[in-house]
Amino acid sequence: MLICNKDRVQNKIETFATFGDAGHGGITRFSLSEEAIKARAEFVKRMEAVGVVTVTDDMANMYATLPGTEANLQRIVMASHCDSVRNGGNYDGILGVITALEVVETIAIEKIPHRHPITAMIWTNEEGSLYAPAMMSSGVVCGKFEKDKMLESKSPKGKTFGEALVESGYIGDAANRLNPKDYMAMLELHIEQGPVLEVEKKQIGVVEGVVGMINYRIRTYGQADHAGTTPMPYRKDALLAAASVLKYLHAELDKLDSKLVYTTGEIICHPCVHTVIPDLVDFSLDARHQDPEVIKQVVEIIKNMPKVFDKCEVKYQEAWARDTIEFNEELVGLVQKSADEYGYTSKKMYSGAGHDAQYVASIIPTTMIFVPSKNGHSHCEPEFTSLEECFSGINVALQTVLEIDKK
Amino acid sequence: MLICNKDRVQNKIETFATFGDAGHGGITRFSLSEEAIKARAEFVKRMEAVGVVTVTDDMANMYATLPGTEANLQRIVMASHCDSVRNGGNYDGILGVITALEVVETIAIEKIPHRHPITAMIWTNEEGSLYAPAMMSSGVVCGKFEKDKMLESKSPKGKTFGEALVESGYIGDAANRLNPKDYMAMLELHIEQGPVLEVEKKQIGVVEGVVGMINYRIRTYGQADHAGTTPMPYRKDALLAAASVLKYLHAELDKLDSKLVYTTGEIICHPCVHTVIPDLVDFSLDARHQDPEVIKQVVEIIKNMPKVFDKCEVKYQEAWARDTIEFNEELVGLVQKSADEYGYTSKKMYSGAGHDAQYVASIIPTTMIFVPSKNGHSHCEPEFTSLEECFSGINVALQTVLEIDKK
Repeated sequence: MLICNKDRVQNKIETFATFGDAGHGGITRFSLSEEAIKARAEFVKRMEAVGVVTVTDDMANMYATLPGTEANLQRIVMASHCDSVRNGGNYDGILGVITALEVVETIAIEKIPHRHPITAMIWTNEEGSLYAPAMMSSGVVCGKFEKDKMLESKSPKGKTFGEALVESGYIGDAANRLNPKDYMAMLELHIEQGPVLEVEKKQIGVVEGVVGMINYRIRTYGQADHAGTTPMPYRKDALLAAASVLKYLHAELDKLDSKLVYTTGEIICHPCVHTVIPDLVDFSLDARHQDPEVIKQVVEIIKNMPKVFDKCEVKYQEAWARDTIEFNEELVGLVQKSADEYGYTSKKMYSGAGHDAQYVASIIPTTMIFVPSKNGHSHCEPEFTSLEECFSGINVALQTVLEIDKK
Repeated sequence: MLICNKDRVQNKIETFATFGDAGHGGITRFSLSEEAIKARAEFVKRMEAVGVVTVTDDMANMYATLPGTEANLQRIVMASHCDSVRNGGNYDGILGVITALEVVETIAIEKIPHRHPITAMIWTNEEGSLYAPAMMSSGVVCGKFEKDKMLESKSPKGKTFGEALVESGYIGDAANRLNPKDYMAMLELHIEQGPVLEVEKKQIGVVEGVVGMINYRIRTYGQADHAGTTPMPYRKDALLAAASVLKYLHAELDKLDSKLVYTTGEIICHPCVHTVIPDLVDFSLDARHQDPEVIKQVVEIIKNMPKVFDKCEVKYQEAWARDTIEFNEELVGLVQKSADEYGYTSKKMYSGAGHDAQYVASIIPTTMIFVPSKNGHSHCEPEFTSLEECFSGINVALQTVLEIDKK
């Protein structure tokens, strides 16, 4: 079996970790920031070192393509992102970029025969940390978002994404965009961002798709009164009601399929003063499962819950929803085959998080490879995947690309 | 029985309601603001009209004293405040000032014989809306707060209370402060700010004291993880734990004396993002009862609750506490006697809210009179007490002052 170069992988992990180093083990590297520009320059430099030229498209997505031996064949692309959340870690996104670089470098340096052009790619602004929404540029390229609206997206300080794009110096030709005519497949390696692979002692996550999800807002309506002067029987306490609704929903939702995940992460209490009985509580309910039938059961539970808890009216509203994305079965099979050939332990799984790959899946055959996340942590500085685990994942990516190349 | 002048009371309620009128039935009249200065000028003007001069002390508290017929007797004082919360109502505080004015006017105009000097008074900054803490000036005069620290208290815009005091033009001589040598009793009429008198159809609340209270902060500690990638069994959800703690505390505290009131009004959730499992929830627990034994039982329940809910550690901390204040029994008896003589229905009760009277009670004999609050609402624009109810309360104040005068 062909393998990549572990020292080179380590060097890349360490080098990219310096761009936006926050000083305590993690990075802050917002899209198109000075730190992200350094990461982009490093990408260009490393590709140039193996004779590969990088071009960009009109969203500053970057494409470095190693030519294949046969003319007029479609490209195979490996892609992820180099931007991070605030005080994020050294693996989310960037490990997929490092994978793309390492696979192209290995094929170029080792002169591994390949028929198709092979592209290493960076998607701009996956996190949406400064400029919402997340997965902005893959969304534009895949027709999910309108580019003009995205250019108007503003950072908290008031700069538009369009301005940041111009300042970055990375705007290229729209003709360079990833498209179904020129590209045959996309592969994205990513950290799992959850604890399953580590707990189940698996080296490779063979990703079958991205789970569908719903996001609801639930509100309880009480009556604001003085905490000292209102006897208990006269109260309508919206926070007590919210606690009751939460406990009710947990009890009901726990009866559904064990792969269902659901979360109340956000809660707003009004007026949120310790001497006033709350009159309004508003909280989120995020629920995810690959099977649309299970998501329907969640919605039924929400719709059938009592209209009144603790004398407070309860209302709900769907904020948004997204369907389950199924990755290309043939590509999923090639990832599985490659992992098996190396003798790596693996698990078929759905991604609970969103990725650029889910948009790309709507225009070309796409799949993903997961590697373990220590303690399941991500979007934080303790985010960690061992060099050995990264190396295994990158080898699977290399082998999968070469398998696709046979087609 | 002597009675006050109902038209004059109505005129005062309507006139003071114009100072800070927020345009939809209530007022915003922060202490020492332009609107509060107008209310103070109105106080001075009305007292001048009956030949009574107003002086101030070094905290801008205002004193208008109608002389008595005997020399060297101590004063009887009626007092409350003319400042409000943001978008407050037309009765909280100001009705006690109107009462003081009306009683002095009635005694002066009707030439009602009285031996002691009778003082109408305004306490500065009871609400603490711009300059914390609440009950600031009564606290300084009664030795609860250090004046120098209070002068440094800053509004959200950065002005100090000391600067506002100078700008107001109402700073007077510290020698004018209410003190135990010159004052024999204080009476404060106030709206109940709760629903009890209205629900029980009582006209007068005979206030026996101010309930003791404790204020705790309770925290649950979870683990922040991704809402989409973390299976339910691996979660430590601090918000679910907080809901469980709340439900547990309600179940336990509801077993205690029915007069206990307790409230969680404030809740903070971190990081409060709909896609992240909360790792920290911090909430308040305010509990009030006149009997210290019941408060002790509340503390026992907090101390004995399980240390872990839903796999999350739970910690608690006392933020502050205040003991029950007992008003002067003889004065309480005189209020009861006066109410009975008018044939008003009444109820003995403790105040659940704090008032200037609770500080004054530590230096001179003090008590309060409550009148009903429609639907129990206060600190909001719908705050309402009918003219008839105000009138009844003011008559009780008049009669109580004349009873005290006999001593």
